[in-house]
Amino acid sequence: MSDNQLKIRTILPEPTLRRLPWYLAYVSLLHSQKVEFVSSTQIAKEIKVDASQIAKDLSFLNIKGKTRIGYEVKTLVNELADFLGFRESHNAFMVGVGSLGGALIHDSGLSQYGLNIIAGFDVKEDVVGTNICGVPILNMNEMCQLQKATGTEIGILAVPVEHAQEAADSMIACGLKAIWNFTPYRIKAPENIVIQNTSIYAHLALIYNRMQECEKTESPKNNSK
Amino acid sequence: MSDNQLKIRTILPEPTLRRLPWYLAYVSLLHSQKVEFVSSTQIAKEIKVDASQIAKDLSFLNIKGKTRIGYEVKTLVNELADFLGFRESHNAFMVGVGSLGGALIHDSGLSQYGLNIIAGFDVKEDVVGTNICGVPILNMNEMCQLQKATGTEIGILAVPVEHAQEAADSMIACGLKAIWNFTPYRIKAPENIVIQNTSIYAHLALIYNRMQECEKTESPKNNSK
Repeated sequence: MSDNQLKIRTILPEPTLRRLPWYLAYVSLLHSQKVEFVSSTQIAKEIKVDASQIAKDLSFLNIKGKTRIGYEVKTLVNELADFLGFRESHNAFMVGVGSLGGALIHDSGLSQYGLNIIAGFDVKEDVVGTNICGVPILNMNEMCQLQKATGTEIGILAVPVEHAQEAADSMIACGLKAIWNFTPYRIKAPENIVIQNTSIYAHLALIYNRMQECEKTESPKNNSK
Repeated sequence: MSDNQLKIRTILPEPTLRRLPWYLAYVSLLHSQKVEFVSSTQIAKEIKVDASQIAKDLSFLNIKGKTRIGYEVKTLVNELADFLGFRESHNAFMVGVGSLGGALIHDSGLSQYGLNIIAGFDVKEDVVGTNICGVPILNMNEMCQLQKATGTEIGILAVPVEHAQEAADSMIACGLKAIWNFTPYRIKAPENIVIQNTSIYAHLALIYNRMQECEKTESPKNNSK
């Protein structure tokens, strides 16, 4: 029982979970610069998050800062990485190995954050049976079997939009518990399935639109000079 | 003047900008299924966004739905893609061609959304002078020259965290106007620079944590059976 309790991390509010990786990035940087201690005020200055918010976010961790000295950087790096699950290895399937799926398999960064892609799945005959960076690409109909054999729980969805729901349904039917959805399609799933939408192309729309905003607000300034 | 006005898209609230690509994904799917008309109620049902919100979001576009029939699917696809800037070609630099940067260059999907990566930049001698999928990899110190020659405004940042700020500073100094930041580092930049953070690894923390939440809430249910 106590072993189980140790393994179970606290369930955090999403905004906290979104900020913790920023802190980790910053304190990892400090660690590489041989800095030994950091205060929440100092992190606040860098990250532009309120110091009290940072202290509150970090209070979920098993770490205490010292008055006037702050947090020990090395311990903070370790606690954050552990807490965020980046130090464990989580098996995952890549579903759809077109351009984006293939690119994500190429990205060894994912394994540094604990994600271990053990197989890719596709329906296209010219890719099934091949491998990408050593990751075998199998036919979609082999997914359930490999899920059972490996207990894989995470699936990365990177199929064309028109197949997104169908592929997600297959993933769930095969026993996957979490879908990391890289398509802009809003897939439907039972409530006990974790869905994380990471629609990188949608972010392009934000960039394009914000760039116009800057052009617009800059023009009058330039004219007035 | 009227030409300019035509080119300038409306500046939208960010939540609207985040939703429009979902609508585009869904209506593109309908288009591929030869569906001719769609109502905001129908979109609402699929996307789980309020129908009145959808109508409001779409009111920013140059398109009118017809009573009882809805929007013409083909026109809606075209208007959304145009409006979101996906139909124009935007030159971009990839700054940092390690694992993730290299993977993003591999992803031809970006060009389908209007992003044309014309060069990669790095400091590592073993990659400078090579090319990835035909995209030349140059030394960081050649960036300003190529920016001037091409007028490139968008830079994709995918360097290690410890070089993120320094690389961003160089990008801004070279005249880039927007930074698509794939690092978890919160870079600092003048207000007129567009920053879009897309920290895909941070999303992994959300998945890992939410999966535990499901395990926790499921256990009692299973026990009670």
